[in-house]
Amino acid sequence: MSANAIYDLMRTQRAVRRLKPDPIPDEVLQRIMQAAAWAPTGGNRQPWRIVMVRDRASKERMGELYTVHWDNFVKIYRQRWVDAPEERRQKEERTIAAGDYLAAHFGDCPVVAVVCFNPKFMAVTDAGQDRVSVVGGGSVYTAVQNLMLACRAEGIGCVLTTLLCMDEPAVRELLGIDADWYTAAHVPMGYPIAGGYGPTARMPVSDLFYSDTWGNPI
Amino acid sequence: MSANAIYDLMRTQRAVRRLKPDPIPDEVLQRIMQAAAWAPTGGNRQPWRIVMVRDRASKERMGELYTVHWDNFVKIYRQRWVDAPEERRQKEERTIAAGDYLAAHFGDCPVVAVVCFNPKFMAVTDAGQDRVSVVGGGSVYTAVQNLMLACRAEGIGCVLTTLLCMDEPAVRELLGIDADWYTAAHVPMGYPIAGGYGPTARMPVSDLFYSDTWGNPI
Repeated sequence: MSANAIYDLMRTQRAVRRLKPDPIPDEVLQRIMQAAAWAPTGGNRQPWRIVMVRDRASKERMGELYTVHWDNFVKIYRQRWVDAPEERRQKEERTIAAGDYLAAHFGDCPVVAVVCFNPKFMAVTDAGQDRVSVVGGGSVYTAVQNLMLACRAEGIGCVLTTLLCMDEPAVRELLGIDADWYTAAHVPMGYPIAGGYGPTARMPVSDLFYSDTWGNPI
Repeated sequence: MSANAIYDLMRTQRAVRRLKPDPIPDEVLQRIMQAAAWAPTGGNRQPWRIVMVRDRASKERMGELYTVHWDNFVKIYRQRWVDAPEERRQKEERTIAAGDYLAAHFGDCPVVAVVCFNPKFMAVTDAGQDRVSVVGGGSVYTAVQNLMLACRAEGIGCVLTTLLCMDEPAVRELLGIDADWYTAAHVPMGYPIAGGYGPTARMPVSDLFYSDTWGNPI
């Protein structure tokens, strides 16, 4: 049954941050891009574009910007685990070390996929609510998830990052991104240096799903 | 190769709006929920919860609210195609008819998955930009896409809707959604009445992807 194949991919869709500089063959990239293109979007508008950055100078510049935000993020992230059991803290330190590696080697990744979007092609139905808006992302991250699952299927490591959105004007200028288009994610891609993919640590279904009303066990 | 199996699912992930009232077996629902739970989220915070609504009165009330917004949406949507060739207009009218069916039968769908999120567990890195924010969605719609791909794999029709976000306060009250949690999507699920899934009409990769800089052909 084909369902089992997709579940195996999803179950092992780990963030892979240590990537080899080896190029990704064009035919593999083509299949990954096609997977993203198939994703559903609101009103089928497909309000996203992805710049596949292979130019070394551009990747290195993004890496410089990324490193600043990553280093700041790590300070906050470590605070979350300061009182955690030693074993858990060590696990988080391994994640941080992998992130440090990614930041230091951003320019070495064969491809950084810079995901852009245009709000003019989106019906942002939660724009009127008194909280941060997310609905525009419903027509962007479906495609990003398809792209990442395709990477997983092809044995290519990747990780969804958004820290560079804090430096959006600099990235827009660097890549010549058109007026009205903005950045939603930056996905470094490459073959894994170590084992790469594997089982993930997620909350159980019983903590994430409710039946009929909030808090009612599924 | 397992990659082909996932590409077949993605290629045929059509929005399915005509759904049978037949219940979805618990073991199938369990697999679909597990698929969503595996999705990556920022800092692995999993800042989403999904209320699986099977209660008929709640689904019917959401259907009443949905119908108002759907009817308004259709008026705007038809304007997009008023000057399109006859064949294209007829295609869009078939989509609208399917949406009309969904709105009229919201209460008949066996499950409506109401996707909730909590901004407190999100690092919204584009909050400082002078445009609508989408980054919070990066930790929500990855899970929604997994859920929908799992539905596809299980032969269960579904469609990502967000129109009810315009009535978020009413939905929050209806389902007793906790303070600090908001709504990001509403996914009606059920076995397809007609053919259901099939090939989709999407833009080609060459229109969606650029190489190195904006507008540069991939």
